[in-house]
Amino acid sequence: MGEFSHFDQHGNAVMVDVTKKKETTRTAIAQGKIKVNDEIFEKVKEGSMAKGDVLGTARIAGIMAAKKTFELIPMCHLLMLTKCKVDFEMLEETKEIKAVCLVKTTGKTGVEMEALTGVQIALLTIYDMCKAIDKHMVMSEIHLVEKTGGKSGDFVWKES
Amino acid sequence: MGEFSHFDQHGNAVMVDVTKKKETTRTAIAQGKIKVNDEIFEKVKEGSMAKGDVLGTARIAGIMAAKKTFELIPMCHLLMLTKCKVDFEMLEETKEIKAVCLVKTTGKTGVEMEALTGVQIALLTIYDMCKAIDKHMVMSEIHLVEKTGGKSGDFVWKES
Amino acid sequence: MGEFSHFDQHGNAVMVDVTKKKETTRTAIAQGKIKVNDEIFEKVKEGSMAKGDVLGTARIAGIMAAKKTFELIPMCHLLMLTKCKVDFEMLEETKEIKAVCLVKTTGKTGVEMEALTGVQIALLTIYDMCKAIDKHMVMSEIHLVEKTGGKSGDFVWKES
Amino acid sequence: MGEFSHFDQHGNAVMVDVTKKKETTRTAIAQGKIKVNDEIFEKVKEGSMAKGDVLGTARIAGIMAAKKTFELIPMCHLLMLTKCKVDFEMLEETKEIKAVCLVKTTGKTGVEMEALTGVQIALLTIYDMCKAIDKHMVMSEIHLVEKTGGKSGDFVWKES
Amino acid sequence: MGEFSHFDQHGNAVMVDVTKKKETTRTAIAQGKIKVNDEIFEKVKEGSMAKGDVLGTARIAGIMAAKKTFELIPMCHLLMLTKCKVDFEMLEETKEIKAVCLVKTTGKTGVEMEALTGVQIALLTIYDMCKAIDKHMVMSEIHLVEKTGGKSGDFVWKES
Amino acid sequence: MGEFSHFDQHGNAVMVDVTKKKETTRTAIAQGKIKVNDEIFEKVKEGSMAKGDVLGTARIAGIMAAKKTFELIPMCHLLMLTKCKVDFEMLEETKEIKAVCLVKTTGKTGVEMEALTGVQIALLTIYDMCKAIDKHMVMSEIHLVEKTGGKSGDFVWKES
Repeated sequence: MGEFSHFDQHGNAVMVDVTKKKETTRTAIAQGKIKVNDEIFEKVKEGSMAKGDVLGTARIAGIMAAKKTFELIPMCHLLMLTKCKVDFEMLEETKEIKAVCLVKTTGKTGVEMEALTGVQIALLTIYDMCKAIDKHMVMSEIHLVEKTGGKSGDFVWKES
Repeated sequence: MGEFSHFDQHGNAVMVDVTKKKETTRTAIAQGKIKVNDEIFEKVKEGSMAKGDVLGTARIAGIMAAKKTFELIPMCHLLMLTKCKVDFEMLEETKEIKAVCLVKTTGKTGVEMEALTGVQIALLTIYDMCKAIDKHMVMSEIHLVEKTGGKSGDFVWKES
Repeated sequence: MGEFSHFDQHGNAVMVDVTKKKETTRTAIAQGKIKVNDEIFEKVKEGSMAKGDVLGTARIAGIMAAKKTFELIPMCHLLMLTKCKVDFEMLEETKEIKAVCLVKTTGKTGVEMEALTGVQIALLTIYDMCKAIDKHMVMSEIHLVEKTGGKSGDFVWKES
Repeated sequence: MGEFSHFDQHGNAVMVDVTKKKETTRTAIAQGKIKVNDEIFEKVKEGSMAKGDVLGTARIAGIMAAKKTFELIPMCHLLMLTKCKVDFEMLEETKEIKAVCLVKTTGKTGVEMEALTGVQIALLTIYDMCKAIDKHMVMSEIHLVEKTGGKSGDFVWKES
Repeated sequence: MGEFSHFDQHGNAVMVDVTKKKETTRTAIAQGKIKVNDEIFEKVKEGSMAKGDVLGTARIAGIMAAKKTFELIPMCHLLMLTKCKVDFEMLEETKEIKAVCLVKTTGKTGVEMEALTGVQIALLTIYDMCKAIDKHMVMSEIHLVEKTGGKSGDFVWKES
Repeated sequence: MGEFSHFDQHGNAVMVDVTKKKETTRTAIAQGKIKVNDEIFEKVKEGSMAKGDVLGTARIAGIMAAKKTFELIPMCHLLMLTKCKVDFEMLEETKEIKAVCLVKTTGKTGVEMEALTGVQIALLTIYDMCKAIDKHMVMSEIHLVEKTGGKSGDFVWKES
C-alpha cells in the first residue's frame, strides 16, 4: 500500500530526500481543457491566425510558470527543465480549448508537477484574456497524460 | 457584443488601463475539485485531523499563490489583497476534494484571477502530496463562483 | 545643484521616503533599439505577420518585467501599475527594431524605471529568440522619452 | 542559413530541447555603457571611492539579476551559474560608465543571456540612482563580447 | 486575552481581512545582532571604509528582502513600502554587528514583518560574506524595537 | 589567515567561481530559537496538536524560503536542494520554540545559507502568526550546527 512521500513519520511535511537518486532523463505530459462560449471560441480561433493572440500569450505564460513550479508547490524540488512546450487544440464540437504541456529534464525527480502547472497557468491565462466577454468558463479534466523515467517507472493515463 | 480587453486595436496584448477606475471593495470566490481514489481520500481525511496535513499545506500554497497572480498571468495587475482564504470540503460520495478560495481587495480591478489561481495551486499541491500513491487524480469544474464590485457589476455562477 | 536621492547623509543606500508624497497619476514612456542583421530583420518582420512571433513574445516579456521592476532595481518602490504596453517599430533603413514602453500608475513615485525595464527586457527577449542566427546584435539608445506627474514635474527628452 | 531555435515548425514559441546536450563549461562576457552628464560622472567617481556607492549597488543588482534571467526571458533555461561578476570602467573622455558582466556555468546551454541581463540591470540601477540629478542618460552599445563552450562554438565580437 | 489573528474559528490559516481598515501611516523599526570573531570584526570594519564592503552588500540585501516579505511569510499582506533603510553599528566590546531596519508605509496593515525580515536577511548576508573565515557566527536578539500607526496602537520595546 | 571569498582583489563583491569544484553530497543543519510569552507558548503547543497550526505553517514557510535563498542572499549560488526539512522543539523551561533546518544537495557549493534561511523564515513566520497576542518575542542563538561535504571540510558547532 502506498504512503505519502511528503511527510515524515511524525506527519510533518518534508521535501523528500532525493540525494541518492540517479540523474536520468524524465518526461511528463499533462493536459486540461477550458470550456468557453461560442463567441469566445470564434474569437480565439481567429486570433490565433490574425491578431489578438490569446493562445500565444497563454503558451508563454504556461512555459514561464512551469519554470516557477518549485516556487509555487511547497514540497517540489527545483529542477533544470531541459525542454518545455505548450500546445493547444480547438475542440469544435464541445467549444473547448485543450492545452497540452510537455516537460523534460535530466534530474533526480520527475516533472509531473511542472507539466501540470504549465497546463493550469496556460488555461488561467486564456480565462484572463477572455473574461471581459463571459465569465462562465470552466476548466476541467486536468490530469497527467504520461510520464517516463525515474524509479517509479513509466505512467500512461487510463481513461476510467 | 463583448470585446477582448487585453488587446489594443492592432491585436497586441496590453495590460489594460485602469488608471481612472475608482478604488472600490472587490471580492471574488472561485472553486474547483480534485478526484482522488479511495485510499487517498481516506488518508487525506485522517491527515486533516491527526497528522500528515495535506490540506493545511495546500491551503498555504493556495494563499501564497494568490498573492503571486500578477507574476503568473501576463496581463494581470498587481493588487494588494486585503483578505485571502482557502477552504476545503471532502465530498464523500464522489471521492472528490473541493477547494474554495475567497479573495478581497480595495482596488481598481477585480480579484477573479487571484481566486482562481488560489484554487488551482491548492489543487496542484494536493496532487503533489498524494501522487506517490496514485497518479490518476483529475482536477475539474474549476470556475468563478461569484464576484462583487467594479464597473462590470456583480456576477453569480449559474449552473448551465 | 542636484543630489543623489538614494543615499542618506552618510552615503548609505536607502529607499527614499515617499510617505508624504501625494498619490497622483504618473506616466512614463521609454524606448530603445536593437540592431540586427538583414536575415533576422526579415524573419522577425514576417514572423509578426504569420508565425514565429518574436515580437509577440518580447511584448509579453517586457510587460511582465515592468511589473517586476521593484524586485530588480534595489532602491525602487513597489508600485501598482495601472497600465503597461510595449510597442515595436521595424526601422527598415537601419535594420533596427525599436521598442517603446508606456507605463502608468496612480502612486507616490514615478514609473520611469518600470518603462525602462520594460524596454530592456523586451529587447533582451528579441536577442534571445534571434541569437541562434547571429550574435552580433547591439542594443542602443535606450532612454526615457517623457514622463508626467509628480513633484519633479514633466520631462520630455531633448535630442542633444 | 540559420533558423530561429525558439519556435517549432508551426511557429509556436518553445523552450528548446537541450536534454541530450552535454554539460560543459560555458562562459560569456557582455558589456554596455551609460552616458551621463558631467555632474553625475564626477559624483559617481567620487562615490566609488568614499561614500554614496552607486557602482557597488549596481554591481549587486546586476549579479542578482543574472541569477533571475530564467524568470525574465520567457524561453531561457534555468542554469546554475558557477560564477558571476560585474565590473565598471569610468570613460573620462566620453563621460560614459561601462559595465562588463562575466558569467560561467557548467551546463547544457550557454550563459549569454545571463551576462547581458547582468549588464542591463546594472546600467538600469545606475540610471535609477542618478536620475534625481538628470534624466537625459542613455544606455548604448550593449552586446555580447565573447562566449566559450557549447556546440555552437566560441564567439568573439567583431566591431563592424 | 489575545487570540491568534491568522486562523479562522476552525483553526485554519487565513490572510486576515483588512479590507475595512483605514490607510494610515505606519512605521516599524526592528534590530538584531550577529556575533563574529575578532578577525572578521576587523575586516568588516576596514571594509566599510576602504574596500570589500560587507555592510554595503548586506544593506542592499536587507532592503530588497523587506520588499519581498509578502512572498516569504505566508499570511503577510503585500504592502507598498514608502521608505526602507538598514543601518549598522559596530559594537567594539562584544564584537557584534548590530543591524537596524526602519520601514514605513501608508497602508492598511503594519510593517513589523518587513522590518524584521530586513534585519534577518541583512544579518544572513553578513554571515554569507564572512563564513569563509569562520562559521561560528551567531545571530541573536532579533526583535521589534518600535512601531507606530494602526488600530493596535504604538509599541515600544521594553527590555525585560 | 582567512580571506573574504566574496570579494575580488579590488574589494568588489563577486559570486565566487565554483566552476571547477566537484559535485559532492553536502548537508547542513542550522538552528535558532524564538522566545515567547506563556500564553503564546501554550497556544502554539495546543495548536500543533489540534487546530490553529502555527508550526505547520512555519515549517512550510521555512522550506519554501530555503529554496529561495539564492534570490535573497546576493552572492549565493542557486542550488538544487535534494532534501529540506524543518523541525521544531518546544522548550518548556525557557518558553522558547527551537527551529532546526536540515538541507542536502549534490552540488558544487554548500548549503549552510539555505539551512540558516530556512530557520530564519520559520522563526519569522511564528512571530507573524503570534504577534497579535504579544510583540515582545525575541529570536536568538541562530547559527550553523553542522555541515558535511565540500573542500572546506566538515564543521561541527562548538559551544564557546
